[in-house]
Amino acid sequence: MNGVSAWVCASCIEIFKGNVMAKVLQIDFPYQGPYGKEMAEQLADLAHSISQEPGFIWKIWTENESTREAGGIYLFEDEKTAAAYLEKHTARLKGFGISEVNAKIFDVNAELSKINHGPVG
Amino acid sequence: MNGVSAWVCASCIEIFKGNVMAKVLQIDFPYQGPYGKEMAEQLADLAHSISQEPGFIWKIWTENESTREAGGIYLFEDEKTAAAYLEKHTARLKGFGISEVNAKIFDVNAELSKINHGPVG
Repeated sequence: MNGVSAWVCASCIEIFKGNVMAKVLQIDFPYQGPYGKEMAEQLADLAHSISQEPGFIWKIWTENESTREAGGIYLFEDEKTAAAYLEKHTARLKGFGISEVNAKIFDVNAELSKINHGPVG
Repeated sequence: MNGVSAWVCASCIEIFKGNVMAKVLQIDFPYQGPYGKEMAEQLADLAHSISQEPGFIWKIWTENESTREAGGIYLFEDEKTAAAYLEKHTARLKGFGISEVNAKIFDVNAELSKINHGPVG
């Protein structure tokens, strides 16, 4: 070997510097049910498949029977995987007859989230 | 003592049964900055005070400099504390000049969230 490799993992530097790259994806839409345990039974297979999506870290499934809405809060590794999942999921919801989907992708403010025990670290 | 007390903590029964009562509060609004580290420095005291709110479990601070938005994803113990915080925080945001606040409170589907490693348990 003629030299010393100076290759350094760019993502690792960002993590070391505390620059969390993770993205929050929040989705909600009108939803007529089912809710609760019945929803969980019907959608368990879908949930398992979501865990296999590229860049996926976690999802909280949200529902509100009184306002007839449902959705999810997700954490993804980065913008690219969050956006790709959103495109896929929006098409899937359209297949379920749900065309009005509210969705936003956000950066995480890591320092403030840490103070408030936000589960992003 | 003439009898045996049969008092049982109602919330404890729900938790034992796996009926998570926690509520997700999602908030977002137009926001002109600052973002990132500057935002964290300016709002650290506010973050510490939020940790002391009744029923508060955690908050992820969200921001998007490209769309000029910010907000938060919160977990609260129950509907009552989530709604009380929302009222207080909306008034505070109004004091910052932010009057257009999008906010929704959701139940958590605990079974599906568990499959997807959702940090609600």
